[in-house]
Amino acid sequence: MSSFTFDLTARDGRGRAGVLHTPHGDLRTPVFAPVGTQASVKAVTPQQLRELGASLVLANTYHLYLRPGAQRVAERGGLHAFMAWDGPILTDSGGFQVFSLADRRTVDDDGVTFQSHLDGSSHRFTPESVMAIQEELGADIIMVLDECAEPHDRAYNEQALRRTHVWAERCLQSKRRSDQALFGIVQGGIFPDLRAQSAAFLAGLGFPGLAIGGLSVGESKDDMLAMLETVDPLLPDDHPRYLMGVGSPEDLVEGVARGIDLFDCVLPTRMARNHAALTRRGRLNLRNAGYADDERPIDPRCDCYTCRTFTRAYLRHLIVAGEMLSATLLSIHNLRCLVSLAADLRTAIIGGTLTAFAADFRDGFRKHRVEED
Amino acid sequence: MSSFTFDLTARDGRGRAGVLHTPHGDLRTPVFAPVGTQASVKAVTPQQLRELGASLVLANTYHLYLRPGAQRVAERGGLHAFMAWDGPILTDSGGFQVFSLADRRTVDDDGVTFQSHLDGSSHRFTPESVMAIQEELGADIIMVLDECAEPHDRAYNEQALRRTHVWAERCLQSKRRSDQALFGIVQGGIFPDLRAQSAAFLAGLGFPGLAIGGLSVGESKDDMLAMLETVDPLLPDDHPRYLMGVGSPEDLVEGVARGIDLFDCVLPTRMARNHAALTRRGRLNLRNAGYADDERPIDPRCDCYTCRTFTRAYLRHLIVAGEMLSATLLSIHNLRCLVSLAADLRTAIIGGTLTAFAADFRDGFRKHRVEED
Repeated sequence: MSSFTFDLTARDGRGRAGVLHTPHGDLRTPVFAPVGTQASVKAVTPQQLRELGASLVLANTYHLYLRPGAQRVAERGGLHAFMAWDGPILTDSGGFQVFSLADRRTVDDDGVTFQSHLDGSSHRFTPESVMAIQEELGADIIMVLDECAEPHDRAYNEQALRRTHVWAERCLQSKRRSDQALFGIVQGGIFPDLRAQSAAFLAGLGFPGLAIGGLSVGESKDDMLAMLETVDPLLPDDHPRYLMGVGSPEDLVEGVARGIDLFDCVLPTRMARNHAALTRRGRLNLRNAGYADDERPIDPRCDCYTCRTFTRAYLRHLIVAGEMLSATLLSIHNLRCLVSLAADLRTAIIGGTLTAFAADFRDGFRKHRVEED
Repeated sequence: MSSFTFDLTARDGRGRAGVLHTPHGDLRTPVFAPVGTQASVKAVTPQQLRELGASLVLANTYHLYLRPGAQRVAERGGLHAFMAWDGPILTDSGGFQVFSLADRRTVDDDGVTFQSHLDGSSHRFTPESVMAIQEELGADIIMVLDECAEPHDRAYNEQALRRTHVWAERCLQSKRRSDQALFGIVQGGIFPDLRAQSAAFLAGLGFPGLAIGGLSVGESKDDMLAMLETVDPLLPDDHPRYLMGVGSPEDLVEGVARGIDLFDCVLPTRMARNHAALTRRGRLNLRNAGYADDERPIDPRCDCYTCRTFTRAYLRHLIVAGEMLSATLLSIHNLRCLVSLAADLRTAIIGGTLTAFAADFRDGFRKHRVEED
């Protein structure tokens, strides 16, 4: 596992700045990963992703297993070659998507059987099959199969946690490729004792990195942050910590302040397709008529292609006119917003100013969180 | 009009290679102009347009007049600033769109009244109002208001031609800005005598360029080429000739061989959104299952970003998965196909090899015009 060395560059409070070495390049943490569910970050080219500073891209095992199929991706040379992203890639295990299927899946101790959302066909994921699929996809960082329980259901979380832990061990045992790092996933809903138990158990298994799963799925922000504080002292200090599926600007700041190194979220690209621009001070709905004559860029402080090139007036015109270019331009901006925020958090940690940075951010966000103008 | 000097660099048969100077840069002709109907070439950024070699972009007066409004574009600094395209822009007069509205417009000698396709509201275009609108939009090349008649209807074409000619004179008289070149439009359907009459009349009015309108609207390819041959000797040799709305690879070759300098067409971007890739040897429908494992680029001879970066297998995956990135990547390729073909035709003219180039093209196209594989 030596190719996945994690060097801690600096600490500031509980914040951490590090470098995670991968076979496809170094990740400077904290890092935000754009989501390319179907091997495409929606509406954005790899060239644009590179230009906006993205370093790690996430793809979804569930979707790629169904279409175009993991073996087909392997035959095309793996995900990096297939989607033309030569930087690090992370695949999830498919667990989250399968458990989101609700009444179209049944779980047992050995795995989970589910119906495809595409054609209703029946499929089965086990810890071993999910490892084999992710080895075919060929991402740098791969994830264990876990059971994502409703976060407030204590009995279900206790039961799911037992399975998640057994499955984590089975994933570790069945993993074969040495050029992939397998991360474990801490579960336990909103229950501090279960989260602590999960963190301690997984920390003992020797994963090169650990994720915190099952958050941002319906629990309150306070509950989410409490869980991060619970597990922080229990997670190995010398390995990266990945908060799955979380990634608004405010979540990044609060997560980093609680020891998180990696984030991913569909929020920036999904918001972009819904005409919303993210900023560190809140969101702008660019469809609003008030922007029709607004000569300013989305965010005068932003250095992305969209903000360097286009006015809010033009972006609003594209949206009203139904031009798909708006999704591209807003995605570029929203992704840059999170990528640059992660980079600035790293700089603050290295400079020892994380507390002040976070306080300034919260202050600006509180003042402006309603539509800026 | 000195800023719009047209220098003829070379001739080869009836083919012409030239340079049209505009306030926003030189156009090396023959040139193909991507269409940005609503001030956006669909799914492609200005940066990508620049990278694929586009030099001239067309925008539609009818659409921009309705939304966001010409005055609003003027207040944003004109089309160049609004859409962030600092190269030459051409706007049509809106005539073609209005006459396409069929039962939602009525024409009289003074102008045309029509209902918006957006909300049914009533509007009126006259030669003078269309000049004023295009002066607010601020393109480098602007077009006279013309009446586009059904190409096979002799009586209608005779009547429409009289109006088109009067309107051309009125446009010339009402034009005010000296940093825009106004082009006349030759009409006359598929009738050689009407086309000749129109070409001779407009040639006498002193336009710095002339367009051939009303083609590629239902007449046969043979009829279109015959009309080009009819007007070629009658058009001023020292001014650019623009074939409106025409732009398949085969049309470019045949048009250039008949003295055309400028082309525009929605075909490459529209085909891209319908999963078709253009090549000099025919079209590929990339949705076809046969491409699912095809490791080749769309066109191994193409130097565009898409062909340098992605396989047919990946593009087919994007299409089947409904990823909008496919429209961007296919648009880049299709536009590059036409832009590079125009550049190669220019090189052939300068090298005196146009006849051989066109013969080779026709030969390759005939052999492969059905789906390549």
